[in-house]
Amino acid sequence: MKMLYSGKAKEIYDIGEDGHILVKFKDDITAGNGKKHSVLEGKGKLSNSANRIFFNLISDVPNHYVRDYDETSFVAKKMKMLPLEVVMRNYTAGSFCRRYGVKRGIKLKEPLFELFLKDDSLGDPLICEDTVISLNITDKHTISRIHEHTLEINRILSEFLSKHAILLVDFKLEFGFGEDGELLVGDEITPDTCRFWDAETKESLDKDVYRRSIADPREVYRVLLDRIEG
Amino acid sequence: MKMLYSGKAKEIYDIGEDGHILVKFKDDITAGNGKKHSVLEGKGKLSNSANRIFFNLISDVPNHYVRDYDETSFVAKKMKMLPLEVVMRNYTAGSFCRRYGVKRGIKLKEPLFELFLKDDSLGDPLICEDTVISLNITDKHTISRIHEHTLEINRILSEFLSKHAILLVDFKLEFGFGEDGELLVGDEITPDTCRFWDAETKESLDKDVYRRSIADPREVYRVLLDRIEG
Repeated sequence: MKMLYSGKAKEIYDIGEDGHILVKFKDDITAGNGKKHSVLEGKGKLSNSANRIFFNLISDVPNHYVRDYDETSFVAKKMKMLPLEVVMRNYTAGSFCRRYGVKRGIKLKEPLFELFLKDDSLGDPLICEDTVISLNITDKHTISRIHEHTLEINRILSEFLSKHAILLVDFKLEFGFGEDGELLVGDEITPDTCRFWDAETKESLDKDVYRRSIADPREVYRVLLDRIEG
Repeated sequence: MKMLYSGKAKEIYDIGEDGHILVKFKDDITAGNGKKHSVLEGKGKLSNSANRIFFNLISDVPNHYVRDYDETSFVAKKMKMLPLEVVMRNYTAGSFCRRYGVKRGIKLKEPLFELFLKDDSLGDPLICEDTVISLNITDKHTISRIHEHTLEINRILSEFLSKHAILLVDFKLEFGFGEDGELLVGDEITPDTCRFWDAETKESLDKDVYRRSIADPREVYRVLLDRIEG
C-alpha cells in the first residue's frame, strides 16, 4: 500500500477503496509539540485497541471509522480536515491550568468547549469562535454542530468510563468533512488524546504519564484497556 | 494627596472626594509586558490630552471619567475592576498576527471582540467567553454588555477618526463596576492602548512606534493630537 502521509503518531495509506484510507498507529509517542519523542514497541497496538473501543461507543455520532483492519490499523473515510483541535474539559488540567493559573483537578460547572488552531509552527494557539469565523476557518453553524457532537461524545464516554471507575478529565477531537460533505469526527480517540483519571486515586491512565515522565505509558494504557475491555 | 497605587503608566491618588480618585499619567512608557521601559518627559501630558478627547467623545457610554484636573491628571469614579483586557480589532495587527500567522493590515469583516485575562505573571492570556464564565470572572450578561459598549465606542471613535484621515485599527478597554454597581469603562483610551494608522500612508500614530523602535512616541502622539484637536 502506498503511504499518503506520516504524522507524529499515525501513518495514512491508500487502501485502494473508493473514499477510504487506512490509518495505522505507529509505536511513536511525542509530547510538547514533538519536543519529546520515543518509540515504544507495542504502543501502536494499544492505541488502536483503545481507539476501536471509543469509536464503537460513539457510532451514533457521524465519524470516519469504517472497520477494523489489523492490530495497529483501521479503515476510515477520506476526509477534508478542519485545521482545529477541539477540546472539551470536565476537570481542569494541563495547559488550561498553566494558561490561567488555576489548580489542577477542579470540576468545571459545565463541560468547557475550547478550540485551538491546528498549526505546529504557531504552537496550536487557542482561538475563540468569533475569530474562527473571522478568519474564514469555518462558519458559525458548523461550530455549533461541532460543539453539539463534542458534548454528545463527552456524555457517552463519561458515562461509559464512570462504570469502570474512570473520570474523563478532558479530550481532544478533530473534525472534518467526508467526501459527501458530511461533518465527521476524524483523527483518533485514545489515551494520547484524552485524560483519564482513576476515579479513586486520581492517577493518570493516559499520555500524561509520558509527558511528566511518571511511568511507561504502555503500562497505564494496558491498565485502562483491561478495565474497559473487562 | 496620598498615592493609592502606582502602575506601569499611571498613578492613582486619593483626592478626598467621596467615590472619586485622581488618575495621573506618568512619563513612563513600557512595552512587551514591561520588558521595555522608558521615561519620556512630557509623555504623560500627551496621554492625558488624548484620553480627555476620547472620553469626551464617548460620554454617552457609561464610564469613569468625571472631570479634567490638570495637564497630566483627571478625576475618575472609584471602580472595582474586572481582571479583563477587552480588545476590539478592525484590522489585523500586533499579537493577533503573531498568534495566528496572518498578515498585518487585513480589514476584518466585522469588528472582532477579544478578551484577555489581565494577569502580568501569566502574560495576559487570551480567554474565550465560556472560560470567563466557567472561571467565575463575570457572567454572560455582563460580557454581552461589555461587547455592546465596546462596539459603540468603536463606532464613535472610528467615525470621529476617519474625519481626520485616521484608521482605528484596534483598541483595548478595561471595564469594572462603579460604587453603585454600574458597569463602567475605566482605565484609559490613548495611543498607548489603541492602534491608529494614517489612512493614506498606514503609518502608526501610536505606541507601536515605541514597541518597534521606529520613532519617539511623543512625536507621533503630537501629530495625532494636532490632527484631532484641529
